Amino acid sequence: MDVRSMWLYRLYYSNTCQWILSLTIFLILFLAFIESPSSLTSTADIRYRSAPWDPPCGLTEGVEVLCLLVFVADVSVKSYLVGWAQFRMNPWLLAYLAVLVVSLTDWIVSLSLLCQERLRIRRLLRPFFLMQNSSMMKKTLKCIRSSLPEMASVLLLLALHLYIFTMSGMLLFTGEKGDGQDRERLIYFRNLPEALTSLLVLLTTANNPDVMIPAYSKNRAYAIFFIVFTLIGSLFLMNLLTAIIYNQFRGYLMKSFQTSLFRRRLGARAAYEVLSSVTAEGEAHPREVGVRPQDFLQVLQRVQLSGSHTQAVVEKVRSYGGDLLSAGEFQKLFNEFDKRVIKEPPPRPEYPSPFLRRAQIVCSHRYFDYLGNFIALGNLVSISVFLVIDADVLPEDRDDFVLGILNCVFILYYLLELLLKVFALGLPGYLAHSSNVFDGLLTVVLLVLEISTLAVYRFPHPGWKPETLGLLSLWDMARLVNTLIVVRFLRIIPSLKLMAVVASTVLDLVRNMRAFGGILVVVYYVFAILGISLFRGVIVAPGNGSLSTDNSSAPCGSFEQLEYWPNNFDDFAAALITLWNVMVVNNWQVFLEAYRRYSGPWSKIYFVLWWLVSSVIWVNLFLALILENFLHKWDRRSHLQSLAGDPDSTYQ
Amino acid sequence: MDVRSMWLYRLYYSNTCQWILSLTIFLILFLAFIESPSSLTSTADIRYRSAPWDPPCGLTEGVEVLCLLVFVADVSVKSYLVGWAQFRMNPWLLAYLAVLVVSLTDWIVSLSLLCQERLRIRRLLRPFFLMQNSSMMKKTLKCIRSSLPEMASVLLLLALHLYIFTMSGMLLFTGEKGDGQDRERLIYFRNLPEALTSLLVLLTTANNPDVMIPAYSKNRAYAIFFIVFTLIGSLFLMNLLTAIIYNQFRGYLMKSFQTSLFRRRLGARAAYEVLSSVTAEGEAHPREVGVRPQDFLQVLQRVQLSGSHTQAVVEKVRSYGGDLLSAGEFQKLFNEFDKRVIKEPPPRPEYPSPFLRRAQIVCSHRYFDYLGNFIALGNLVSISVFLVIDADVLPEDRDDFVLGILNCVFILYYLLELLLKVFALGLPGYLAHSSNVFDGLLTVVLLVLEISTLAVYRFPHPGWKPETLGLLSLWDMARLVNTLIVVRFLRIIPSLKLMAVVASTVLDLVRNMRAFGGILVVVYYVFAILGISLFRGVIVAPGNGSLSTDNSSAPCGSFEQLEYWPNNFDDFAAALITLWNVMVVNNWQVFLEAYRRYSGPWSKIYFVLWWLVSSVIWVNLFLALILENFLHKWDRRSHLQSLAGDPDSTYQ
Repeated sequence: MDVRSMWLYRLYYSNTCQWILSLTIFLILFLAFIESPSSLTSTADIRYRSAPWDPPCGLTEGVEVLCLLVFVADVSVKSYLVGWAQFRMNPWLLAYLAVLVVSLTDWIVSLSLLCQERLRIRRLLRPFFLMQNSSMMKKTLKCIRSSLPEMASVLLLLALHLYIFTMSGMLLFTGEKGDGQDRERLIYFRNLPEALTSLLVLLTTANNPDVMIPAYSKNRAYAIFFIVFTLIGSLFLMNLLTAIIYNQFRGYLMKSFQTSLFRRRLGARAAYEVLSSVTAEGEAHPREVGVRPQDFLQVLQRVQLSGSHTQAVVEKVRSYGGDLLSAGEFQKLFNEFDKRVIKEPPPRPEYPSPFLRRAQIVCSHRYFDYLGNFIALGNLVSISVFLVIDADVLPEDRDDFVLGILNCVFILYYLLELLLKVFALGLPGYLAHSSNVFDGLLTVVLLVLEISTLAVYRFPHPGWKPETLGLLSLWDMARLVNTLIVVRFLRIIPSLKLMAVVASTVLDLVRNMRAFGGILVVVYYVFAILGISLFRGVIVAPGNGSLSTDNSSAPCGSFEQLEYWPNNFDDFAAALITLWNVMVVNNWQVFLEAYRRYSGPWSKIYFVLWWLVSSVIWVNLFLALILENFLHKWDRRSHLQSLAGDPDSTYQ
Repeated sequence: MDVRSMWLYRLYYSNTCQWILSLTIFLILFLAFIESPSSLTSTADIRYRSAPWDPPCGLTEGVEVLCLLVFVADVSVKSYLVGWAQFRMNPWLLAYLAVLVVSLTDWIVSLSLLCQERLRIRRLLRPFFLMQNSSMMKKTLKCIRSSLPEMASVLLLLALHLYIFTMSGMLLFTGEKGDGQDRERLIYFRNLPEALTSLLVLLTTANNPDVMIPAYSKNRAYAIFFIVFTLIGSLFLMNLLTAIIYNQFRGYLMKSFQTSLFRRRLGARAAYEVLSSVTAEGEAHPREVGVRPQDFLQVLQRVQLSGSHTQAVVEKVRSYGGDLLSAGEFQKLFNEFDKRVIKEPPPRPEYPSPFLRRAQIVCSHRYFDYLGNFIALGNLVSISVFLVIDADVLPEDRDDFVLGILNCVFILYYLLELLLKVFALGLPGYLAHSSNVFDGLLTVVLLVLEISTLAVYRFPHPGWKPETLGLLSLWDMARLVNTLIVVRFLRIIPSLKLMAVVASTVLDLVRNMRAFGGILVVVYYVFAILGISLFRGVIVAPGNGSLSTDNSSAPCGSFEQLEYWPNNFDDFAAALITLWNVMVVNNWQVFLEAYRRYSGPWSKIYFVLWWLVSSVIWVNLFLALILENFLHKWDRRSHLQSLAGDPDSTYQ
């Protein structure tokens, strides 16, 4: 390994370079909001939407080509670093290169057509850049891939189940005219595709009581058909799918931790070998093998590591004196990096007067915190009470005089609390706790909002009613920020034993969520782009299209009657929300039906595919992540408890 | 222990007595269908329902008192067997006694009022008899109880989450008149209870796109409020609840198996001690400790055990010869009870002629099974094809000539297959496989149906159209039974490796389901009885009540427009279906809203409580059961595989 490669390696993995890469990935993904069809309108509702701003040809393309050039640089540096032999064997790097080539070709075609082409392949390929940059996402993808065969077997069972019940349903519901059975047939079991759709939707329980009502009104016994279907399909087979995904996922976190630990050990051992060989070279006749501390310190100063950890290691090295470090001692040094550095709270300011000293003790006592929480509770209750009182008064006629005064008082108290705490703990001591920082920021924001409210509307007087400006009035904003004070109560959680586990699980989850969030982004991106190219402009506003229907004449439960107009695929932001609504599954039969009417029967495939990917696979993956995190946490906690003695449970 | 107690103990735990007890429990629970308000009407729809049959006072009460007397006998025998000291300490037995006393008192009050009283406490108490009779259910209940504190902490977090978002929502949606914000306020955020209900329903995603539409139509940004709410509440906190329940439940099956094994070992050891003391007494000067085989065999003949297992044990004992059995050998004998006795298939009939012998080989070959499956597939396809062809033809105008002929042919083939198999395997050999029994039964049922169809409607001819008699025509019944033939394909599953695990999990689940099913029955029973006493007769049929509304004038999405009339609490069967529909959660806001109008705002508490118990707790419990079963199965399978060598997964 030559010095130039080393320098390049350092540069490539430096924070700046990696940060630039992340920014580029974010930028190229974010382009979808601006590119035509741009999402820069205030509403997605086709009835009220103004014409969106159309970026001139070349603007977004310019940004895009810059991003692509950064990726080209990235892939060439990476391939140089891993070498040609490795490069040929690595499918991810090869795919990276292929995606770049296709994207650049597509970009050239696009520019030569003056941005008039409809289908842009490179948009679909963009999420790949996000995926190849995260090793966690690659691992998760592997996890999903390995559980696909089993999932396929359950899906096959599901399909069989669906088919048997569809056939039975079609045979069952063929009554006489005007009969309950006949109505059931006409609405839900008219022909094979419709019957299949009805039962597929019932599998997600999205049309539950409706689908059984016509037949069930005729005879009680028909309900059994639908209940048995839901029991087997929705409760049994769907949960089996969860079990399969969780089974693949079990020990996934543990394994990934173990792997990274193993790699680090290996790295440390290699460093030891290198350094001990340097030591051996330096000395004329090597008597013992080991690393000289001064060599190690020299290396340590030249690498990038977090300051506090480095200091701890340096101190440890110094404690060994001038002796050579053995392999074991060398490994132990790196354990310092795992230890959390507990910062000592900065010393409190010392006041000369005994009165001030007593006040300091009072203000830093935890009862003072409790009082603050209590006051915040009072604030919350006052807002709730006024909301309840004002419920039946129209927003225009509300009198905000008393609440305005009360809010002033509460904000003054928060300010007082802030000042007293700073006085008691000193500014560095105050800022050492993140909960204090949050409270302080909230107080400052509230104060600024309150002062500007008073400056604009003057002091509250009876009949005082600030006008609405823009999205919501300044005054509403102040009230909204007030409700944020509820978050103060979350501080109580760590003191409640059971809540503590739950809360720390939630925090851990957020940390481990990145890979899953990434996969969600990729899936949403691909489906949104696909949806835009398939269904853009398909939904036509009522009154100016051939399919125009008045709201009042539309049948109940249809897309038009429910006014789902903003749920379209006309721009990227709208497509995301539409996909979200289908993912949540409730009422997705309305989308299925509407897009069948507006776009054709094949649109169902898109929506069913999205349901499978998002609601079936991703939501189950998410559940598996939560289970894994929680159980991991719980095992560690109960392990600690069992040391303290755990009474064995008895059986009756 | 005297002989009389022993005799009583044997009698009490004999199959007959336990069977009588189970029957009594079933009977007393089943009474709810017949008691007034009886469920003996063909429909639960209040528009079409005829007046139900009202059992005369004293009929159901007579059956009830008989059941109660059986329980009195049960509790007295049990208390005599366990003894007074044990009885006082056992809360279940004490509760049993108390429930019986209350039930009998209530029964006397009921008879003295000539069955006119509205509230019957003893009905609510009935599920207790089911619960106290099953040790698995008691254990599961204990499991649930021990996870309640943690669930409470998550529910507290959920409540906090709900409250913060309700407040923010009410502050956010106070726009001007005729505005999107204003419509949002008027429909979903009018006052605190309504806003809370809207967001509680959104937590179950039952009103997902609807609740955001008015505000989202105004501005895209409002969608974020609802998406963040659903993400935190529905995806995060709800799944955390699943994790908590699963955590309590983990190892539950394993533990229960271990406990029962431990008890059996203890029992065997005690039996060994008793028998060896008998041996010691018999001999004049005991040289060695042990059990004489003949003593053991004598005991074995006097206890009730399954025949095939006993035989295996007897053979094993005989193999030891006349030596005394040591404690270890004695224990080992009982392992025989765990072993599955593999029955040898009965010998095939031997035919003299070589032609018949060759035919026998052909018919017992597995390719013959495959041919049968293939024919059944053909049958299925033919039915599907005719369903698709007939989809647009009214049921009255359909011509069933070709299908009638085809069905005759298929049923003749099934009959032929049945006969050939019986010829090849012999009748005992044929009946040894459960899949054959199923096929045979199906064939016989089909044959009977077909012959009776032909007898009634004569042979199919063009324009042949059997009339509908009763619920569905005989001909439809024949087609319906035909679709059951699809189940034959489930036989293929064990031959597909991956499907095999899934299928065996499903089978195991059904075995372990009894405790869960029992809890579900208990919960449904209590809530149904409670619902009947709260909401009986509350829903009034349109046209003859003060709240009469015409279907066409009812607003879209209301109880009346959706014609949810059969979903009431007027009798037990209807209440069960209504509770099921609320448990499935979809559209439950319609029930909340309707019962608020018809019965008052406090009815919400009942529905929310039911949602918590059924959908939140029970469904999660069910998921935990499935996870536990599947992972248990999987671990055993992968353990077997790892012995055969499992390639370790590599990381990229």
